[in-house]
Amino acid sequence: MSLVIIGSVAFDAIETPFGKTDKIVGGAATYASLAASYFYKKVKIVGVVGEDFHQEDIQNFNDHGIDTEGLQIKKGEKSFFWSGKYHNDMNSRDTLVTELNVLGDFDPIIPENYQDCEFLMLGNLTPQVQQTVINRMKNRPKLIVLDTMNFWMDIALDDLLAVIKNVDVLTINDAEARQLSGEYSLVKAANKIMAMGPKYLIIKKGEHGALLFNEDLIFSAPALPLADVFDPTGAGDTFAGGFIGYLAQVDTINFNNMKNAIIFGSALASFCVEKFGTERIKNLSEEEIQARVQQFVKLSSFVIEK
Amino acid sequence: MSLVIIGSVAFDAIETPFGKTDKIVGGAATYASLAASYFYKKVKIVGVVGEDFHQEDIQNFNDHGIDTEGLQIKKGEKSFFWSGKYHNDMNSRDTLVTELNVLGDFDPIIPENYQDCEFLMLGNLTPQVQQTVINRMKNRPKLIVLDTMNFWMDIALDDLLAVIKNVDVLTINDAEARQLSGEYSLVKAANKIMAMGPKYLIIKKGEHGALLFNEDLIFSAPALPLADVFDPTGAGDTFAGGFIGYLAQVDTINFNNMKNAIIFGSALASFCVEKFGTERIKNLSEEEIQARVQQFVKLSSFVIEK
Repeated sequence: MSLVIIGSVAFDAIETPFGKTDKIVGGAATYASLAASYFYKKVKIVGVVGEDFHQEDIQNFNDHGIDTEGLQIKKGEKSFFWSGKYHNDMNSRDTLVTELNVLGDFDPIIPENYQDCEFLMLGNLTPQVQQTVINRMKNRPKLIVLDTMNFWMDIALDDLLAVIKNVDVLTINDAEARQLSGEYSLVKAANKIMAMGPKYLIIKKGEHGALLFNEDLIFSAPALPLADVFDPTGAGDTFAGGFIGYLAQVDTINFNNMKNAIIFGSALASFCVEKFGTERIKNLSEEEIQARVQQFVKLSSFVIEK
Repeated sequence: MSLVIIGSVAFDAIETPFGKTDKIVGGAATYASLAASYFYKKVKIVGVVGEDFHQEDIQNFNDHGIDTEGLQIKKGEKSFFWSGKYHNDMNSRDTLVTELNVLGDFDPIIPENYQDCEFLMLGNLTPQVQQTVINRMKNRPKLIVLDTMNFWMDIALDDLLAVIKNVDVLTINDAEARQLSGEYSLVKAANKIMAMGPKYLIIKKGEHGALLFNEDLIFSAPALPLADVFDPTGAGDTFAGGFIGYLAQVDTINFNNMKNAIIFGSALASFCVEKFGTERIKNLSEEEIQARVQQFVKLSSFVIEK
């Protein structure tokens, strides 16, 4: 069995109030697979890069035990490139450059040795490509998690609705949940969205944490209040990767494990924002992760006697 | 010993997408004292109303065991009146009418039998009036909680800084914490604000819950996700009243009791928004409150083994 993660593998150039970077490795599948690798040893990536991609970044995946057989390298082409500048509050940003390059006609290849996939993470991409990946899996994975964004609701809603019908967990932010459902109340929004297919819905609220919905159960996860957010890029993908990596490790899908998976995903995301790009999540120790998770426990625990 | 609550006692006319009210009883001290009365039996109110105020609303305070000796009734004058209309998302509103009336030159009277005050709630009012109440207490209460808003930061910052130097707990929302401190990070904001005087800071985040800060400790309290918010008026005051009422009941000030006080305050606030005005929080049973608190426990609990 394995955990297959599909998504962009890219170059980012990031500017924040704390500094700026040249082209550094980024992309949803990059962050998610690195995060997942701390919990689960058989992470396999599906993506596409250009000839300009750095061998050392591929080596870094492999050093984390991540299988890159499904990462296509297109000769004579360039990798997806995104450049953005964060405002002083770090909560909003301007996109300066988006060059789709190899991602423009991305046709995902699922290598034969990925067909043992039991956990599938569909990172933010066109809904059609996400559906193609599901179609190309010979056996239906035990758990499919899909991440998407408002952009696809705007321009490809029918495709999006078609693919989310086939997934188990949908992760979106609160504004997207409201857009997708037409409901302002997140409880009503969640009920409508779960009726569209996913049994579980995770609503990401950034600095306000996350909500997990499943039937009539709700879990509210805190976010760790941080003195400094150095670079928020990839935090959501890191969250998703930590989440599904933890679930692959425990290998039992239930509400309690999902709750813990959200805490582990949130812990990984809280590291992600401490440095530029993947710098911080490339080199985490087991002890650091456990200590961070215990901070989440302390942050949100209280005891009220009945 | 007693819990003294000072704040507006007023008429509100409220319009929401669900309907509208005539002039109904409202005001910070009204909501806070009703909420506190469920936890603590010696609640005493300080405020001012006009001749137009209804005897039945005063009787309702008394029925809840609330002492109204400090509630001045000004002959020939009119009560403070606020009218507002909520937008469809219930998160923003327009103020239609504000008539200060008796509140314009409010000079709080502290009856002799209020001098046993050990817990003092300074509801949102001019900082000068809040300071006057502290000055008129012969003994410094064991715990002083102050609620304020951006309006006073805009027009009376020096007075506000002077009074918050003398309080133990400050409650403000996240935008106000940022405004008061000049820091975007709520951790940095909290540290700066605690250096201004209050040992404890509660940052209210509405539908995102609340954060409690004390030295280097942080507690993140969830908000109960609600399918319907009928009328948000008074929810913050209800929270504050439940908070200090619970602390007066347990009578020991420490971080763990503060955490629980926030949960009980949040539970009361979650009832408040279910109906117009004080309608829902006028008639709560012990069982309803305990059941609601257990919903908060379920909502936020998770177990991660070390």
